[in-house]
Order: sequence, then C-alpha cells, then structure tokens
Amino acid sequence: MTDKNKKELTHINKEGQVNMVDVSSKPITAREAVATGQIQMEPETLDLIKTGQIEKGAVLETARLAGIMAAKKTSDLIPLCHPLFISSVKIEFEIIEPASIKIICKVKTSGQTGVEMEALQGVSSAALTIYDMSKAVDKTMNIGEIKLLEKRGGSSGEFIASE
Amino acid sequence: MTDKNKKELTHINKEGQVNMVDVSSKPITAREAVATGQIQMEPETLDLIKTGQIEKGAVLETARLAGIMAAKKTSDLIPLCHPLFISSVKIEFEIIEPASIKIICKVKTSGQTGVEMEALQGVSSAALTIYDMSKAVDKTMNIGEIKLLEKRGGSSGEFIASE
Amino acid sequence: MTDKNKKELTHINKEGQVNMVDVSSKPITAREAVATGQIQMEPETLDLIKTGQIEKGAVLETARLAGIMAAKKTSDLIPLCHPLFISSVKIEFEIIEPASIKIICKVKTSGQTGVEMEALQGVSSAALTIYDMSKAVDKTMNIGEIKLLEKRGGSSGEFIASE
Amino acid sequence: MTDKNKKELTHINKEGQVNMVDVSSKPITAREAVATGQIQMEPETLDLIKTGQIEKGAVLETARLAGIMAAKKTSDLIPLCHPLFISSVKIEFEIIEPASIKIICKVKTSGQTGVEMEALQGVSSAALTIYDMSKAVDKTMNIGEIKLLEKRGGSSGEFIASE
Amino acid sequence: MTDKNKKELTHINKEGQVNMVDVSSKPITAREAVATGQIQMEPETLDLIKTGQIEKGAVLETARLAGIMAAKKTSDLIPLCHPLFISSVKIEFEIIEPASIKIICKVKTSGQTGVEMEALQGVSSAALTIYDMSKAVDKTMNIGEIKLLEKRGGSSGEFIASE
Amino acid sequence: MTDKNKKELTHINKEGQVNMVDVSSKPITAREAVATGQIQMEPETLDLIKTGQIEKGAVLETARLAGIMAAKKTSDLIPLCHPLFISSVKIEFEIIEPASIKIICKVKTSGQTGVEMEALQGVSSAALTIYDMSKAVDKTMNIGEIKLLEKRGGSSGEFIASE
Repeated sequence: MTDKNKKELTHINKEGQVNMVDVSSKPITAREAVATGQIQMEPETLDLIKTGQIEKGAVLETARLAGIMAAKKTSDLIPLCHPLFISSVKIEFEIIEPASIKIICKVKTSGQTGVEMEALQGVSSAALTIYDMSKAVDKTMNIGEIKLLEKRGGSSGEFIASE
Repeated sequence: MTDKNKKELTHINKEGQVNMVDVSSKPITAREAVATGQIQMEPETLDLIKTGQIEKGAVLETARLAGIMAAKKTSDLIPLCHPLFISSVKIEFEIIEPASIKIICKVKTSGQTGVEMEALQGVSSAALTIYDMSKAVDKTMNIGEIKLLEKRGGSSGEFIASE
Repeated sequence: MTDKNKKELTHINKEGQVNMVDVSSKPITAREAVATGQIQMEPETLDLIKTGQIEKGAVLETARLAGIMAAKKTSDLIPLCHPLFISSVKIEFEIIEPASIKIICKVKTSGQTGVEMEALQGVSSAALTIYDMSKAVDKTMNIGEIKLLEKRGGSSGEFIASE
Repeated sequence: MTDKNKKELTHINKEGQVNMVDVSSKPITAREAVATGQIQMEPETLDLIKTGQIEKGAVLETARLAGIMAAKKTSDLIPLCHPLFISSVKIEFEIIEPASIKIICKVKTSGQTGVEMEALQGVSSAALTIYDMSKAVDKTMNIGEIKLLEKRGGSSGEFIASE
Repeated sequence: MTDKNKKELTHINKEGQVNMVDVSSKPITAREAVATGQIQMEPETLDLIKTGQIEKGAVLETARLAGIMAAKKTSDLIPLCHPLFISSVKIEFEIIEPASIKIICKVKTSGQTGVEMEALQGVSSAALTIYDMSKAVDKTMNIGEIKLLEKRGGSSGEFIASE
Repeated sequence: MTDKNKKELTHINKEGQVNMVDVSSKPITAREAVATGQIQMEPETLDLIKTGQIEKGAVLETARLAGIMAAKKTSDLIPLCHPLFISSVKIEFEIIEPASIKIICKVKTSGQTGVEMEALQGVSSAALTIYDMSKAVDKTMNIGEIKLLEKRGGSSGEFIASE
C-alpha cells in the first residue's frame, strides 16, 4: 500500500457501477481468516451470563451457534460477497473482567476468494445474539472493536493486524 | 433496574433451557428503536468513499440497502427473535472527519415485541458492507460503538441512552 | 395523475437516499393484486409441456409452486418491500396456441401496504421455472408482458389496467 | 368428520391445481399447537449425549435452537404454508431410557391460520440436528412418531390426540 | 466401531464447545446417501391422495418438490452442516397399502463431506408437506422410520443399513 | 436440435416425476451466460428515474444490487436449479429513449452446470425492483423481452441468440 495512487475500491468500476468482483480466473487455494470483537456490559450482566454459562452454557452457546449459522449466510447478507463452500467456522469467547466478552471467529475455506467477511459476520452475529439475550437486564451494552486479526491464502498474501 | 435481585435473563427458563419469550399475551402497540454504530478507517479510505459517494453514491448506498435488507431478516439471524411485520427501516450516515463514518438506523413496527434487534442488525450489516467494499484498500478498519440509542413502545417503556 | 408536478419516487427522499416507505400510520385493510405475464416458445416446446401437463402436470405444477413460494419471499428479494402476512396466492395458466403460456397470479393480504410486487414476483418466478424446465429443448424462449392487471384496497384506491 | 363424503384435500381445487388456502376472510384468533417425535439410538449414543448434556448441554441445546429457528422458517419450507407472526416456540426434551429422546414442541400465534406445521417442523428439525451431531458414532438412529398432540383455536376447534 | 472408547461426538470439542467439524484437509470425493421415511394415515386419506395422484399428481408432486428444495437448504437448517454443491436430489414415493406412504431420497455431491443430512432433510420435508396438504382431513397422521439407508464415499467408507 | 424426436424435458423422468438433473458426472468447466430484458414505462417516469440516476443513482443502483443478490439466490427460487459457486455477476442498464430501460446481466461460474437461470433471475429481479421503486407514479409499466443472449461452456456448447 505504498503507492497510494494504486488504491481503488474494487467493487466499483470506472462508471461508478457496483458489481461483484470477478474471481473466475483466480486459482482455488486454502484460505482462512480470523476476526474479533467485544461486547461491553454492566458487571452484573456479565455475572448473570457467567453464572448461566458455567451451569448451563445458554447465552454463549446460543451466540456461538448464531455466529456459525450467520457466517454460512454471509453471501446472502453482504451484497457483493461470493457464495462459498465454507469448510470450518470456529467461534470462541473470552471473558474480560469485569464487564466485557471478547469474541473470536476463525473461518476456513478452499476457494477463489477470502473469508474475511465470513469471520467478521460470525463475530457480529454472535455479539448481537449476546445483546438480544441480555437486553432485558441491560440496555447499555456496546458492541465494538470488530476487526480482522489474520488472513491467509490468496494473491494478496498474509495479513496480521498489528496489536 | 433498582432491584438487582429481580434481574433475570428472559430467554432462559428455570431449567436453563433456551426458548423464545412468549409474547402471545402482549398487546399490539406502535414501537420504534434507534441504534447507532461507527466504522473507523484510514483517512485516505474515507476520502475514497466520500469521493465515490459524492459522484456515484456507491459505497454508502450499497451499505444502506444491505442494512435495510438485513433488518428485515433479523428473526432469521438472531435465534430467539420473533418474526415481525416491519413498517419502516431508515438508515443514515454521518461522515466524522477525519476517518470515521457513523451509522444510524431507525426501525418502526406495530407489534407485540420491540425492534431493538432490527435496528442493531441494520447498523451492523451496513457497517460490514462498508468494510467489504473498502477492504481491498484498508484491512485495518474497525467497527464499534454499536448500541441502542432510543426505544419507544411496549410495557418496558421508553429508553433513551445517556450520551 | 393529472398533476405531473406531484409525482415523485416514493422510495427516495429529498437527499436522494433510498429507504423503505414508512407505512406505520397506514390502516390495516384488505388488499389484493392480480398480475400477469407470458412466456413464448417454439410450438413444439409447448407441445411437450402440454403433453406432460395433461398426463402428469409436471412443468406447470412445478412452476405454480415456484411462483407461490417466491411470492411469499418477495420482501427478501425486492430491497424496499415490506414483509407481509400473505393470506392467499393463486396462480393460473392459460395455454395460448400455438406457442405461448399466459400466467396469472392473484395475491391477497390484510395489511398496511399492497401486494402488487408479490403478484408480479409470483408471475416472474413461475415464468422462470417454465424456462428452466424447458431450456434443454428450447433456448429461444422469451418472457414478457409482465404487468399489473388489478389492485384493490389501500388509500391509492382501485387500479384496473386498460386492456 | 362424520360425513366422510365431505372430506376433501383443501390445497387442491376442483381442477386439481395446487394453491394456498385463502384465509383472508378468517378472523384473527389465538392459536397453539403441540407436536411430538422421537429419535431412537444405541444406548451408548444416548449415554454420550446425556453426559454431554449434564456437563455442557451441547447436543440438546443445539437441537433446541435448530428446532426454534426452523419453526420460524416453516412457510419457507412447506410450499403452501402461510407466513405467520409466531409469538412463541418452546421445545423440550425427555430422555426415555435406555435409548430414545422424546421431543415436544409447542408453538403459539395470533393469526388467521393454525401452527400445526410450525410445531411439527420444530420437532423434525430438532430431531435431525440430534442425528447430525451424533451420526459420527451411530448411523442407525431412527426418527419417528412425529405427530400432532394438541391444537387449539380457529374454526376447526380443539384437537387432542388419543394416546 | 469396535473400540467403544474411540467414540466421541465430533461437533463438540474438549471444552464442550459446539463447532463445525473442520473438513478443510479432506479430499473432494464423489459421495451419495440414501435416506427413507414413512407417513402413516387413515386408509381413506391415502385413497384421497392416490386418487389425486393418479389424475393430477398434486400431493406427492408438491411433496417431492418440497423435499428437493429443502435438501438444498440443509446447511441453513442444521446448524453445523457445511454448505455443499449438491449435484443431484431424487425423491421417490412408494404406496404401502392400506395406509402408508414410503419416501426415499437419494442425494449426490462431489465434496469434502457427506450428504446424509441432505437426504434425511429431503425425506423429512417431503413427509411434512404430505402432512400439510392432508391435515384438513386427517389429524392423526404419523411420520416415522426416518433413517439412513446407504452412504458411499469419504474416509468413513460405505454404510448400508441392515434391514 | 435437428432430430426432433430426441427432444425431451430434462427434469421429468420416464414416470413423469420431477427431479433435479444429475450433474455428478459432468466435468467442472468455466461457464458464462448473458441474459437481457426490458421495462417499458411512461416517458415521464423514465425522466424521473434518469434525473434521480444522474444526481444520485438511486433507482438503477438499487435495482442492480437486487439483481446481483437475487442471482446468488437462484437455486433457492427455481426448484430444480443446482446450488452454484458464482464467481461473477455483472448488471448493466441501457436507457432506450423515450420510455424504456434495457437490463443486461452476465454471470460466470466454474462448475458442472450452466448459469443461464442465474442471469435470467438477475434481469428479472432488477426489473421488478425498478417497478417497485417507480410504481407510485406509474402503474402501467410492463416488463418483457426477458431472454438468453449468450451461453458458453459445458457439453451443450455455445449459444448465441439470433437478433
């Protein structure tokens, strides 16, 4: 990205028309992406989730499934994403005391285009599901820090976010 | 929320089982919700979007449509959300110089349950679409501050976020 | 439509932003719409469909179901359509010798907005399904004359197309 | 159903054409339906699920969510079902020793048509999800006894299955 | 399956977290699966369906299409199923006098994971559609014996159910 | 198509049963299809769209996105279409004075079956979206001339429509 003049938005052609990027001539390669995000809440909301989680797993397990299922639907949600055979979606949670949950989503595929959006969609839908299940007790939750951590495979090479 | 002991997670019953909240005995009332969020990027990425927007509107108009369409699919994405007749979805963007776009989504319905999740889903999908369309030039974008701003209608009354 | 100056595109606001029309203050009324369309083909293709239809009903019955199912998905396909409870979808076919099939789709609902798009979607998907099932023998089929025939209910009153 | 001659299949009109039943003139009433089903497996498979369930709840909680989400999608899956606002879906499991799990799904709505299919869809998708999660250890599982237990509301009155 | 200790539920990792099985390192092979199921009804219900079927094919043809379309949506319905390119879905019915219909669904793909769930989904949705179309005349129908008959391709080898 | 006796409808087998064509033994090849269609309207409606388009692009940009997104959903809408990895969808519009808009949709894939239906679906959904956004000012619009222009790849060889 040293040559700023070379930067252009890939989904918009010279006439400003929006279209899917044509990936038909790209090789099929193994690709993976890792995204992350956080949801902040009142400490007592986190306590309720943790208690539930340790005993029954309900909130985080529901969020995990919602994230996995949404990652599979990414091309239905993001207008210019390509449909993909997704070979793996993995979502993990990290409790950050006193009042936050970190979400990490890793997606793998073997295809002509990357899975960054699938990983970000998984994080986003898992966070929204935590919100939905907890909103009766806490309307001040805040979802943030949704970003790409790692990306491998494809012609654009490896990306690892600087912390 | 003065009586902390009364707080409980509405989607989990006494045996820790996850289920949809039964809204069958709630009255049908007019309801609306406003949610917001931001996507931060490199200043030159914002310049590209703005230039595109003024001339052709592409990135933000695509994000707006993605947000509207995703809001209509909320009950398909959030496991315990009720299907709803949505009577209006409105998404607006605010450029925050030098390097951020604010997204505001307002949803209205007439139904037995609120539309907070629809508004949050609209914000989230609009943000992810901006990400998707700009990711070829900027992999360090960061989506955050997704939260509920206002909620009206229904037995839980009005909620307005303190700034 | 006598005052041309009053015409404006309802989905685009003054800043040119696309949004769903807000129907939250409209009354719930009984509404229905009838749309039609045609698919033209080689006479021998029509013969194959008719023979199949009389004996087994396959092509037209499949098209009828595809049209009904697509009408139910209209709000998922047309970006600014409202989700609706649809109370009836009825699709009929008329063989027009020597080489055309007419499709008529009638949709009813009780809601805050009309069902013209649902009727047009039903016609369109039924026609595409006839095309799909017959394309191995005829690649020159042509779908056309898709238009609204009748519309009742709602504040804009009754519409009946002049033949 | 005393007059056997009066029985006819409601989705097929006199010309044998398949169509959605027109419910536009039916009143909106409270309706509920309860369906059930079973999945039989090897006793050691049930042990694995139970162990998992007691500690972490994974198989049955995943099946419960799958059933709830599928019940919401019934009109997308069953060609002639009407889209419905569903006000509640509740799925419960009963371990039947030594080698079977019973699934009970109760659905409520307020609408012009019943929710039998939604309840049956919930049972069916929960059973298939148990199958999917356990199939690596047991390919002889058998899903059965899927039937309607109770139905209330609407002009056809109450139905309670004789045991 | 001689070593019972080796059995473990593939979708649940050591911490009890639910995740999609990672199939990214599996080879792409030809795979097929055959599943079956039955729907039992009153003899007079079967008579109505048969009469309709011989003349116009309506109930079973609708069920066949519903099964095919649902098989294509399996990864959307079963939370941990992988999206797949399905190369063939074939559904057949067998009338079992005096009061039962057998459903057989065969699915083929070329991919990294099998199509058992797609075949079972096809059977299940076809059965539910027969139920839906006949429920006005018979509320005692019972769907059962849904099971895998055959499975070929992939590292777990061939499976043929013992009758 | 010289031997008329060889023509048969590919989706219906000898017993008249509808099924997906089995493409499991076909090679994976690069395929593309181009379809077209037109929407006719009152000249003043076209003026409103053009004015909007030049300044803000709203109607045609919304239609373009609707067409792209619908093309990705083709296998969900056309009962016997195979799910496909679509590598590119491109939609263009041509203003035909005084009162018509031409839609051209080009789809590419690398797969075992062609993308004619995806291209036709893209055209059809783009046309319906133009209709939806303009229907408040013009109920006499007419969608037609939807047909295949070109098709390449696969054993049936190249097809180019004679003008």
